[in-house]
Amino acid sequence: MVYSAEKLSEEKVFKDPVHRYVHVRDRVIWDLVGTKEFQRLRRIKQLGTTFLTFHGAEHSRFNHSLGVYEIVRRIIDDVFAGRPEWNDDDRLLTLCAALLHDLGHGPFSHSFEKVFDFDHEDFTQNIVLGNTEVNAVLKKVSPDFPQQVAEVVAKTSAKKRVVSLISSQIDADRMDYLQRDAYFTGVSYGQFDMERILRVMRPKEDQVVIKKSGMHAVEDYIMSRYQMYWQVYFHPVSRSAEVILTKILHRAKQLYENNYSFKNDPIHFYSFFTDSVTLEDYLKLDESIIMFYFQIWQEEDDAILSDLCRRFVNRNLFKYAEFDPAKEYKKLAELTRLFEKAGIDPEYYLVVDSSSDLPYDFYRPGEEEERLPIHLLMKNGDLKELSRESEIVDAISGKRRTDHKLYYPGDFLADESTEKEIKKQIRTLLEI
Amino acid sequence: MVYSAEKLSEEKVFKDPVHRYVHVRDRVIWDLVGTKEFQRLRRIKQLGTTFLTFHGAEHSRFNHSLGVYEIVRRIIDDVFAGRPEWNDDDRLLTLCAALLHDLGHGPFSHSFEKVFDFDHEDFTQNIVLGNTEVNAVLKKVSPDFPQQVAEVVAKTSAKKRVVSLISSQIDADRMDYLQRDAYFTGVSYGQFDMERILRVMRPKEDQVVIKKSGMHAVEDYIMSRYQMYWQVYFHPVSRSAEVILTKILHRAKQLYENNYSFKNDPIHFYSFFTDSVTLEDYLKLDESIIMFYFQIWQEEDDAILSDLCRRFVNRNLFKYAEFDPAKEYKKLAELTRLFEKAGIDPEYYLVVDSSSDLPYDFYRPGEEEERLPIHLLMKNGDLKELSRESEIVDAISGKRRTDHKLYYPGDFLADESTEKEIKKQIRTLLEI
Amino acid sequence: MVYSAEKLSEEKVFKDPVHRYVHVRDRVIWDLVGTKEFQRLRRIKQLGTTFLTFHGAEHSRFNHSLGVYEIVRRIIDDVFAGRPEWNDDDRLLTLCAALLHDLGHGPFSHSFEKVFDFDHEDFTQNIVLGNTEVNAVLKKVSPDFPQQVAEVVAKTSAKKRVVSLISSQIDADRMDYLQRDAYFTGVSYGQFDMERILRVMRPKEDQVVIKKSGMHAVEDYIMSRYQMYWQVYFHPVSRSAEVILTKILHRAKQLYENNYSFKNDPIHFYSFFTDSVTLEDYLKLDESIIMFYFQIWQEEDDAILSDLCRRFVNRNLFKYAEFDPAKEYKKLAELTRLFEKAGIDPEYYLVVDSSSDLPYDFYRPGEEEERLPIHLLMKNGDLKELSRESEIVDAISGKRRTDHKLYYPGDFLADESTEKEIKKQIRTLLEI
Amino acid sequence: MVYSAEKLSEEKVFKDPVHRYVHVRDRVIWDLVGTKEFQRLRRIKQLGTTFLTFHGAEHSRFNHSLGVYEIVRRIIDDVFAGRPEWNDDDRLLTLCAALLHDLGHGPFSHSFEKVFDFDHEDFTQNIVLGNTEVNAVLKKVSPDFPQQVAEVVAKTSAKKRVVSLISSQIDADRMDYLQRDAYFTGVSYGQFDMERILRVMRPKEDQVVIKKSGMHAVEDYIMSRYQMYWQVYFHPVSRSAEVILTKILHRAKQLYENNYSFKNDPIHFYSFFTDSVTLEDYLKLDESIIMFYFQIWQEEDDAILSDLCRRFVNRNLFKYAEFDPAKEYKKLAELTRLFEKAGIDPEYYLVVDSSSDLPYDFYRPGEEEERLPIHLLMKNGDLKELSRESEIVDAISGKRRTDHKLYYPGDFLADESTEKEIKKQIRTLLEI
Repeated sequence: MVYSAEKLSEEKVFKDPVHRYVHVRDRVIWDLVGTKEFQRLRRIKQLGTTFLTFHGAEHSRFNHSLGVYEIVRRIIDDVFAGRPEWNDDDRLLTLCAALLHDLGHGPFSHSFEKVFDFDHEDFTQNIVLGNTEVNAVLKKVSPDFPQQVAEVVAKTSAKKRVVSLISSQIDADRMDYLQRDAYFTGVSYGQFDMERILRVMRPKEDQVVIKKSGMHAVEDYIMSRYQMYWQVYFHPVSRSAEVILTKILHRAKQLYENNYSFKNDPIHFYSFFTDSVTLEDYLKLDESIIMFYFQIWQEEDDAILSDLCRRFVNRNLFKYAEFDPAKEYKKLAELTRLFEKAGIDPEYYLVVDSSSDLPYDFYRPGEEEERLPIHLLMKNGDLKELSRESEIVDAISGKRRTDHKLYYPGDFLADESTEKEIKKQIRTLLEI
Repeated sequence: MVYSAEKLSEEKVFKDPVHRYVHVRDRVIWDLVGTKEFQRLRRIKQLGTTFLTFHGAEHSRFNHSLGVYEIVRRIIDDVFAGRPEWNDDDRLLTLCAALLHDLGHGPFSHSFEKVFDFDHEDFTQNIVLGNTEVNAVLKKVSPDFPQQVAEVVAKTSAKKRVVSLISSQIDADRMDYLQRDAYFTGVSYGQFDMERILRVMRPKEDQVVIKKSGMHAVEDYIMSRYQMYWQVYFHPVSRSAEVILTKILHRAKQLYENNYSFKNDPIHFYSFFTDSVTLEDYLKLDESIIMFYFQIWQEEDDAILSDLCRRFVNRNLFKYAEFDPAKEYKKLAELTRLFEKAGIDPEYYLVVDSSSDLPYDFYRPGEEEERLPIHLLMKNGDLKELSRESEIVDAISGKRRTDHKLYYPGDFLADESTEKEIKKQIRTLLEI
Repeated sequence: MVYSAEKLSEEKVFKDPVHRYVHVRDRVIWDLVGTKEFQRLRRIKQLGTTFLTFHGAEHSRFNHSLGVYEIVRRIIDDVFAGRPEWNDDDRLLTLCAALLHDLGHGPFSHSFEKVFDFDHEDFTQNIVLGNTEVNAVLKKVSPDFPQQVAEVVAKTSAKKRVVSLISSQIDADRMDYLQRDAYFTGVSYGQFDMERILRVMRPKEDQVVIKKSGMHAVEDYIMSRYQMYWQVYFHPVSRSAEVILTKILHRAKQLYENNYSFKNDPIHFYSFFTDSVTLEDYLKLDESIIMFYFQIWQEEDDAILSDLCRRFVNRNLFKYAEFDPAKEYKKLAELTRLFEKAGIDPEYYLVVDSSSDLPYDFYRPGEEEERLPIHLLMKNGDLKELSRESEIVDAISGKRRTDHKLYYPGDFLADESTEKEIKKQIRTLLEI
Repeated sequence: MVYSAEKLSEEKVFKDPVHRYVHVRDRVIWDLVGTKEFQRLRRIKQLGTTFLTFHGAEHSRFNHSLGVYEIVRRIIDDVFAGRPEWNDDDRLLTLCAALLHDLGHGPFSHSFEKVFDFDHEDFTQNIVLGNTEVNAVLKKVSPDFPQQVAEVVAKTSAKKRVVSLISSQIDADRMDYLQRDAYFTGVSYGQFDMERILRVMRPKEDQVVIKKSGMHAVEDYIMSRYQMYWQVYFHPVSRSAEVILTKILHRAKQLYENNYSFKNDPIHFYSFFTDSVTLEDYLKLDESIIMFYFQIWQEEDDAILSDLCRRFVNRNLFKYAEFDPAKEYKKLAELTRLFEKAGIDPEYYLVVDSSSDLPYDFYRPGEEEERLPIHLLMKNGDLKELSRESEIVDAISGKRRTDHKLYYPGDFLADESTEKEIKKQIRTLLEI
């Protein structure tokens, strides 16, 4: 039997708290899960610093990746199979892309990408196409299979319908993470009736559409998404931890560039500092490596690096205040001046952080970040864009919401031993 | 206001997926949660290697410790408060002991204790009594408060009723971990009606007893416990990972003793290798430190150390076979001989591992590990030992169940490049 | 001890699938639950005909009434108690009103009220104030206590804050029924984080307000409400059953007025037919009585009455089509004409039914059905109307949605034995 | 296409709170659900009088019947389909038998069967084989199909494997009711991992067996069953209601036999009183009919009948005391004498009721009520009876537990207006 069609002698299952069980019958999927690049996702938290706000959110990207695979598997095997519009030859490709779509994520990706200026999606491509165990498994299917998978993950594949199962405004990725993150944090907002949505998904020309009868379940999903963003993903305490994390990386890089002598060689970071990261370097990085350094850096001589690391490790985070950049830039300038005067480096200790989300958007061709809209399949076979049928979605469609906050170390300002007067002025400006 | 009576201006809550919310009003509790020793528990998994079997089980001891505190708080504030038998002066002591009872746990405690021969409970004592942030907080309550807390955790306190809330055959510790571990693994076995049990708990002389009307809920709890042990805690795949982990530590220590030159100095391990661990050393250790070393040791020259580390990191675990030590010791000797002949060191690659559990026991005074039985409070005020009332508990009471398995590297035996004949004999003996 | 302050010797609990347990300590509450008027609520379904669409929705108003009581009890005892703005003297009054707020509901209230032109709320008043067991219990508290309870239920009480706990846009009534109806139907839409909402409710002057930090939980509640209305309460299949039910009552009344001779005297209906219902008559009515008559009426000689009863009892419901009264009134007239021609009485077999909901409204003084808006309590102590802070709520605030459908018996139109041509024309007009 | 193979153009689903959705694709199943005999099950509660103890338990047998069908459908379509041991020709037969297995249940079956001496299972046979809509649907499949279905339901079919799916010690019937009754009552005891059990079920020769790896899930199921029996099904308050119900029927029959003149002719009961029930009579009976009579009988002249009916309708139940018939028969005789002396008819007001359960039994050929044991399928293909592998099941296997209680009207004994001294003696004997 050809490798792509090989089935395990007995179905294997992973016990999953969100989907109850993840089912695997394809040898290819089983082999991919066993690769070291996929196992590495166990050492990268799904939600980065969120566990410092919601202590249950300690789950890994390994968890989530299996979940996305399982949702796609159910859509294909339980809903699409046998429908004339669906080409079952795309099955394995879709399953592999679903499983591997986050493979290139590193530890605390967001901060790393920002400081060291790269894109984790490039690494996903590299892992799929490079000299890896994952690539070896995929190549056994066919020589160009890794390329096919890479294109689906990169959304450049001509198989748009396959792409839309994994990345669109209602895809298996979002459906898994909303439910999973809700489960592990313990908030109730991420719940929606996925069973219902799966049942009304239909392949239709270039895309995956939703039968009109499932519109309300989709509305509920969009509201869940909205709530999860503002209640969990953009929680100001998690953002505070992320601000500190970013500043640690920033400081370490700066020290390296200034030839600072680290007590312990941060060998895992060198290629990041010098912008020369190889795939091999990248794969060595995970959260235990990062946390190792953050812990030993608590004892570095550089006061800023050690302070920031102690804050992160021991969860002694920055406080925050509302901030409106459009109106309060003068206040920020004044605060910056006062921080400098008080001997608190504003580059590291006075940070504006912004979060922004667009819960749903209709199609705006030509605009940045074009988003494929969700289409409803009407009884007569027509397609209608969701916000034209749903009043609730229409009400929020295209409305971007942005939130700015100013982060600072509350304890530094409380300490009145020196610079008493300046700190008082700062506190007055910050209204604390 | 004295520190011990200080309340937060507004109640704080932690969102918890198991108990919905963990409520904190006492300043002392809030301050303890903020100490670095308590925050360290975030970096130690509650279930060690179990996440390699049940991928959801990535939750930390921080999670569990808050949960135990919350259960005890509810028992005291919602059930015991106001009852004449309960002395509310013990409230803060009980809450602190509940929160801190696992403070001395290190990464993968079980394996560490086995290889380096220490007891994590001694470290709990040291943290509570030593030069730590936790101790500083407790001392603010009163000079002897750390000692009081330490005694409750060590079960040597004269306040037996306080002790029994935290460690007995039906205590807040067990009630939290059964539910929590069930939640994160996703298995249904750990569920029981804790609400009911809390409602029927009563302080009574030296102990905490259960009103007769709650007997069935207690039966259900004991069955949950039984199932969780055999389905989750003793799962042979997790035990396989633990076997490998233990052997890694064992090998590293042996190499160190043989003056092996590590490519990268394992400074965090030195005091463990030389049996001279200080509290400071111990507190530096967490799972990210351990995983850092395991990852770099994958590239050590020593074939056994690097192989075992690769197995652990990439989850390439040992296979297992049923094994009866009483009957099959000859077979084990023969296998040991064959492994040696095949060039596979049996000390590291042929391991017998045993698990054993006693789901419930009545009181056997004088015996090792005396266990306080669960007492039912009858309508007439008498106490009756649980197994005398419950047929189901009676049926399993005092019956120890033990399971032995033989672990070995399946892949080594599959490789037929050399020693073909010997490996074939091994496989025959192992019936694979 | 005065009756109003009497506590049960031991707290009683009702096992409740939604709130886990309903707790009762007050003797007055316990006695009210035991009255025959309250027990009667067991024989009236919470959701009328909905069980014919969602088979799980067989729960009674007894269920719901206990749930509303429990929510109010938790707000008062766990959240409000001890706050200076809350007057604990109102406690018992609030609990009683919560428990009894639906006491006057009859079987399939909506249809009964429509056909026989009365208001179940008048009967709630009558039961509380009349010669009933409920009144006897309340009077034991104080002579004017029944009147006080009646005023709270009728929303005419001067204690506006007490009223707002039981009826406002976010009250215990709505919070219970959304969750309870979701639980029993099995839909996921009714879930929201009630724990969170309870924790952020505050008494404030005349009303109950919500701390700003709980705004997102309230948004989620409003979306749940919206979804439950359109997914469950206004489900066209349930409405079809209700249309038939209404027509049965209508027909029976008409027959009575025309001196039709029923095979079996419908004694329980006489006072309804003659618009002379006494409290005693009313209390005798429940769903088993109604269903008794509907079953025996299946064998009545009147073809319309027996057909409609058979449809209701055996769930052979009307089909439906979208209908726009503003644009399609001519079509309706034409259909009416054709139905008559085909010998199918349009009064009973061609029915327009409309549902309409306003998910949330800000305050429009002077308008019909003034609704008190939800107020947020800002950090600085100010109050802000919800839709001014929440974009999502603003988007749907004040937007009434209405849905019209045309109901008809599909089977009658399929039968082509006679009037073949006319029926074909009808089907063409209905697009079936 | 032949009728038996007809599929609906689009799968239909019922929203189910326990299984999320019940899926129907077969036209035969859809048609059976629509019959009036099946719809009648909506008017019969699954748990009889239990709703008087657990107010959530208002669900009907309609609910449960769909659930059993769904479980069987999943076993066949998701687990058995394609396995060589499974004959898919049996599929429709199994599904129909699952759906219809409880069709003959009447209102409060247990009490009715006891008083009027019949067996509801005979009526199931009659409905399947008689002149009914159900029979008409089944006959369309093939002339002998009704007979085949009837034999499976009666357990006389030669297709033992089909029978064992619907009735054995671990069948779809039990698996549905344990979960469903737990869901609606709100108790946690009925939960077990059905997903797991379904996945390890295997057709094997004459029976359905369980793969060894699923043994713990089966243990958990058996414990759930044990707990549900004692916590819910045999709850003494529900039994009290059942005692009263039985006595009402008993009294009505006795009055009829004594030519008592009912104010309102109980026409629905006549054939029961005279032991001449036809299928047509039987099908007219449901709980609304019964409740109709109980309500009007509250106003009958016979003091016993009206008292008992008032008790049942208004939930004014009997109290109970522990009773050991082996040791306390003298006490019972004495109580009987005293009741008579006090003018309280002991036949109706002093009732011994016994409940008894055998949670699991191995096979005892030749004994009454032979029960097929649960067999585990070992890795080597052998079968082993469950209690030989599971210590917990072994501990309770074959152990029958029986509970006797003595029911009496507490209020009658409290009334001291007359017969003060006798009532005091009664209370002393009853220890109240």
